[in-house]
Amino acid sequence: MLKLHHHPMSAGSRFVRLVLGEYGERIDLIEERPWERRRELLALNPAASLPILVEDNGPPIVGGTVAGEYLDETRGAFQREHRLFADKPAERAEIRRLTEWFLVKMDAEVTRYLVRERVFKREMRAEHGGGAPDSSAIRAARANLKNHMRYLGWLAESRNWLSGPRLSYADLAGGAAFSILDYLGEVAWDEEPAAKDWYMRMKSRPSFRPLLAERLRGISPAAHYSELDF
Amino acid sequence: MLKLHHHPMSAGSRFVRLVLGEYGERIDLIEERPWERRRELLALNPAASLPILVEDNGPPIVGGTVAGEYLDETRGAFQREHRLFADKPAERAEIRRLTEWFLVKMDAEVTRYLVRERVFKREMRAEHGGGAPDSSAIRAARANLKNHMRYLGWLAESRNWLSGPRLSYADLAGGAAFSILDYLGEVAWDEEPAAKDWYMRMKSRPSFRPLLAERLRGISPAAHYSELDF
Repeated sequence: MLKLHHHPMSAGSRFVRLVLGEYGERIDLIEERPWERRRELLALNPAASLPILVEDNGPPIVGGTVAGEYLDETRGAFQREHRLFADKPAERAEIRRLTEWFLVKMDAEVTRYLVRERVFKREMRAEHGGGAPDSSAIRAARANLKNHMRYLGWLAESRNWLSGPRLSYADLAGGAAFSILDYLGEVAWDEEPAAKDWYMRMKSRPSFRPLLAERLRGISPAAHYSELDF
Repeated sequence: MLKLHHHPMSAGSRFVRLVLGEYGERIDLIEERPWERRRELLALNPAASLPILVEDNGPPIVGGTVAGEYLDETRGAFQREHRLFADKPAERAEIRRLTEWFLVKMDAEVTRYLVRERVFKREMRAEHGGGAPDSSAIRAARANLKNHMRYLGWLAESRNWLSGPRLSYADLAGGAAFSILDYLGEVAWDEEPAAKDWYMRMKSRPSFRPLLAERLRGISPAAHYSELDF
């Protein structure tokens, strides 16, 4: 059995859930509040970051990109044409570059800031950093998001799926990150029609349903969040 | 032929050079000043980050961890007992966790700050952010380094090599990052004897020689930097 220590607003966690959804795997979800750095979480991952995947009480598989590789080696490799990875090393490198782009680079420049300021701080106690959102951090993240939207638009215009002709981890990583921002109403879809079309295709996939049905305590999603046609 | 766009103070670049050194591959090095964001560099990688590996005018392979995977698929997989990766998915996940730890997490918390403040700013023009080092950034990075040293010490004490019984990418990633900090005289080796012993073993490897022989313009390395017994 697979267990995932996750948070609904963690892009890497959503990415792993989408991968497992595409491969039709069931999973037990354990929601964590990483800022509390509880002892059991630190024992699994001294970085106290999410997600953490555990299979049958085996060793923890730490991080979105690392869990993605693990799931490719243990599941994807046997999926033939449904595999979410390519066969050729150079194509695999491009899928990995974009997966890292959305889960590491965009996370550090946009997603993590907005989630921290707008979501986590409401739940945090003062000694963990809770309190009013920092409006300059929000402004900086929104400015960075504009560049990431342009890049997403360029990818969606020049390719069928983000990394090339076929659906891959790159799309699931992008879908994971942008669905968080979309929940928070941060995405100006109308400025990038090709990106919007790509995201509509992503949202229509059965693997997306559990994410679209989930609600945060005290924060409603943007009106169009679960609409397949928006 | 392999070409690597790199900088001597980029941990990911050093990591790729060490991997290629271990596999006995020749490489053409092209030194970049990533802060200048020159057009040719942006065309290879819109993030303008290093390293970037190019094989026979093929597509760019972007980033240290992504290049490591590419080199495992195209070289390592044929190296039998000299392969720098494990066979079992869970062991591979642990190697990847630590490679990411040194090349992404420690880079963002320590290495990149110290290199920017102490090295890049000397070379940068004012409009790129050059000028006097920011002493509060240096202080924060040094405080973070203490935690990373303790973790390195713990890994070196509890395992033969950092990810387990055999030399792996985890050691090369750690060696890459710590050799940069060691050049700059930032590492208090005597506080972590097991880490020091591990680093001495790393430094003695032939793949390390080119790194130990390299000198930055205007910044001499710490006195013990190239000593194998320090």
